[in-house]
Amino acid sequence: MCEAHAFILKDGQEEKILESVDLVEMDGDEVRLVSIFGDRKTLKARLKLYDNTKRMIVFEPLISGERQENL
Amino acid sequence: MCEAHAFILKDGQEEKILESVDLVEMDGDEVRLVSIFGDRKTLKARLKLYDNTKRMIVFEPLISGERQENL
Repeated sequence: MCEAHAFILKDGQEEKILESVDLVEMDGDEVRLVSIFGDRKTLKARLKLYDNTKRMIVFEPLISGERQENL
Repeated sequence: MCEAHAFILKDGQEEKILESVDLVEMDGDEVRLVSIFGDRKTLKARLKLYDNTKRMIVFEPLISGERQENL
């Protein structure tokens, strides 16, 4: 009952990418998401906002070529 | 009852920095944390791990001079 949902910012709007997130793992620019149902998503993004009240984890996509020094 | 706690990685160990996190806001390299009690913390770090089961939000500190292009 406590899970938050993952969103990605697109044109200033939050678009849901994964329901009921159990795990978020960052590896450089890569975000690995796992839901409580075992669904997985991987994306190039970074955290923008975590709002416990709204149960939202919002990521912003990384523009290609940005932050290459972290790879 | 659903709040997670914020930790920072120090020498490979998770050190608790804020209990019962309500809000995490990223602004460039800066992380602003607000707890459900209204306590606030700001640090230079980025997300490393969010573990819903363990109720942990783990950040890793940014080394000074790193990722300056995001400021």
